Amino acid sequence: MALKSFIEVSPDSHFPIQNLPFGIFKPEPASPPRPGVAIGDYVLDLSTISVSGLFEGPFLSGSDCFLQPNLNKFLALGRPAWKEARATLQNLLSGMIIISDEAKLRDNPSLREKSLVPMSKVEMVLPIAIGDYTDFFSSMYHARNCGIMFRGPENAINPNWFQLPIAYHGRSSSIVVSGTEIIRPKGQGHPSGNSPPYFGPSRKLDFELEMAAVVGPGNELGKPVDVNEAGDHIFGLVLMNDWSARDIQAWEYVPLGPFLGKSFGTTISPWIVTLDALEPFACNSPKQDPQPLPYLAEKISKNYDISLEELRNFFCSKRVMIMPSVLRFKSNQLVKKIHVWSQEATSITCKASAPCIAKQEPESYGCLLELTWNGQKSLSLNGATRKFLEDGDEVIFSGCSKGDGYNVGFGTCSGKILPSP
Amino acid sequence: MALKSFIEVSPDSHFPIQNLPFGIFKPEPASPPRPGVAIGDYVLDLSTISVSGLFEGPFLSGSDCFLQPNLNKFLALGRPAWKEARATLQNLLSGMIIISDEAKLRDNPSLREKSLVPMSKVEMVLPIAIGDYTDFFSSMYHARNCGIMFRGPENAINPNWFQLPIAYHGRSSSIVVSGTEIIRPKGQGHPSGNSPPYFGPSRKLDFELEMAAVVGPGNELGKPVDVNEAGDHIFGLVLMNDWSARDIQAWEYVPLGPFLGKSFGTTISPWIVTLDALEPFACNSPKQDPQPLPYLAEKISKNYDISLEELRNFFCSKRVMIMPSVLRFKSNQLVKKIHVWSQEATSITCKASAPCIAKQEPESYGCLLELTWNGQKSLSLNGATRKFLEDGDEVIFSGCSKGDGYNVGFGTCSGKILPSP
Ligand SMILES: [Ca+2]
Ligand SMILES: [Ca+2]
Ligand SMILES: [Mg+2]
Ligand SMILES: [Mg+2]
Ligand code: NI
Repeated sequence: MALKSFIEVSPDSHFPIQNLPFGIFKPEPASPPRPGVAIGDYVLDLSTISVSGLFEGPFLSGSDCFLQPNLNKFLALGRPAWKEARATLQNLLSGMIIISDEAKLRDNPSLREKSLVPMSKVEMVLPIAIGDYTDFFSSMYHARNCGIMFRGPENAINPNWFQLPIAYHGRSSSIVVSGTEIIRPKGQGHPSGNSPPYFGPSRKLDFELEMAAVVGPGNELGKPVDVNEAGDHIFGLVLMNDWSARDIQAWEYVPLGPFLGKSFGTTISPWIVTLDALEPFACNSPKQDPQPLPYLAEKISKNYDISLEELRNFFCSKRVMIMPSVLRFKSNQLVKKIHVWSQEATSITCKASAPCIAKQEPESYGCLLELTWNGQKSLSLNGATRKFLEDGDEVIFSGCSKGDGYNVGFGTCSGKILPSP
Repeated sequence: MALKSFIEVSPDSHFPIQNLPFGIFKPEPASPPRPGVAIGDYVLDLSTISVSGLFEGPFLSGSDCFLQPNLNKFLALGRPAWKEARATLQNLLSGMIIISDEAKLRDNPSLREKSLVPMSKVEMVLPIAIGDYTDFFSSMYHARNCGIMFRGPENAINPNWFQLPIAYHGRSSSIVVSGTEIIRPKGQGHPSGNSPPYFGPSRKLDFELEMAAVVGPGNELGKPVDVNEAGDHIFGLVLMNDWSARDIQAWEYVPLGPFLGKSFGTTISPWIVTLDALEPFACNSPKQDPQPLPYLAEKISKNYDISLEELRNFFCSKRVMIMPSVLRFKSNQLVKKIHVWSQEATSITCKASAPCIAKQEPESYGCLLELTWNGQKSLSLNGATRKFLEDGDEVIFSGCSKGDGYNVGFGTCSGKILPSP
């Protein structure tokens, strides 16, 4: 029988006791931000649990990591502390177990009152202070499609792509939490070889559906992490929308890579779903092909089976919703792309070697660049058409792994386009 | 007559009262880090000056910005506070002025004893917590030389270079302070078209002489800074060594730009020389050519005349110094390259539009890639030869502007190569 919480959780909730994703929230607009876990329609305030002395394990008792405005201190403690927190919270929230020690929350009305806040009332903020942010070019199909559009079919994928993870650093200070409005950036574009460049609001504003990995303890400068231990550094995953201005990107990216076309805003979902919660959904990766150099060869090559089944794009105009759920992504395996954020000085040689898993079919395309083939065709959606995003459009991603009678879900990652000022 | 401090400052010092660069230091190895300014052979402890109530101006009285372990809070206050701090400190350190108010440090032996620490005894640490770090491709000659080596003479400089600032984000967590040893990185290289890639210690380890701009207040996401106001966001400059593994860089950088070949360590000098201290050395920039789009056109195009005259490369082997000062860079005008670090959420469209000023002559080449033309020829230095850096080599940069009877200098930016483990 599946583990159940004493808190009632609807069967289609993303946040049953099997999930317990971590985030940072404000109970009231003026409250200081604090750590919490999602449980059904509630957020459990970990600062209250911590002050009440209920984290009694060796790693967390006496620690002030849950009295911080972000999760960095908790993440720096590493996997043993993460597992201890999860076990403690599953015990506290369980309704199955009746050992007195584990009913300290359930049978304490005043503590329940203080620590359980309705999710509808809280404001979620960025869960971590992000030191560095790296965007990996993980999906072979995405790489090939972009390559054909930007460089032609002969040079679609550069040979290095098959030999090592290709990535660039993004701007960590422009990462925002789900719900933040995105202002259409102005920048320079260059439509064709002989025309002069222009400056103005981006004409090819796009989204990119991605999964981002939040890296915990990190490593010392000059001490690389072995590829077989890289997983231990990943605390969990969030959904990410890597908003992209294709006209700016196409003109600026040679030879130093994407820059302003990517750094005007990047949205993540607020709840970090831990690898421990995703473990029941682990599955084999495709074989690494070609055989990589030994330093990149994984002994166990693991993916997680997450359906991005609730991905929806709402194209709105003047606040009138034109259509509901229109695009459905079913990718049987993570990960379209893996992002790694490091909080500490790091020089991990290879943080995310997960090969691309995006499917080849157009239905699994993760951005308008691919869906409209760089604006050459229109996407028809319940009567409206789009080549790229228009002002007022809102894009909402969702993702979920379905277990036996429960979900481990990510909630949503959303953002709405505001016009350039 | 030039302004003088009551503290004796030797005429060739980089740190007279005209300079007063800001840094973060520890008076003793176990002390908490705190802000200071360099004056002659001393560091003035700003936390002590602040606690003593000597910052009496409207922006700084009552502020705890000098009781922090980095300069971020001070930098966030913006240019009016920076000017107030400089004026207050010049008054306190002056020996010319005998108004009682301005002798509060000079005539207070106990305060002098507490607040003035011999520079030889302190440990300098990183002056700022760096949120984002951007490397601009500013020097046309460097761009052309790299382009010829990596892509051939036909495609040496991409057309976008002449139209907008080309840049990429670096890894901010691998920026270290002068004196930190640099471990030779391991990575993947690919010597020629038909050979398989290899993994191992970099075979083409290089330095890059750069100037870095430290950005203060920043801007809100989506609210660009006007190019004519960009200077107000720059607090000051430091020397930077953008250590580069050319074999790793050449293989990985298409199409997303430099990544691991640049992110194993980047060294900066510890003292931030303010733009206010450099103002006497301001000079006209070369005319922007071609005429940029209006959003990039500067009304006043200013450079600073800084001689990188003390740049020295010490190639050492087994701690035996093989040669003293060997390379001399005389560039009459800043800036080989401008780096911009932002501490806050930023989406400045153009933070550094300073055109390149590096000279064309080989004597002004700022890296071994250019000096040895990617290892095709050797550099002969007092009997030793180098194509790229060897383990044990130490590279030391220095830079200085010479005024009438005083210098405004940067001190040194140094690092020594340790072997791969
Ligand atoms: Ca992306
Ligand atoms: Ca550089
Ligand atoms: Mg991205
Ligand atoms: Mg650099
Ligand atoms: Ni890049």
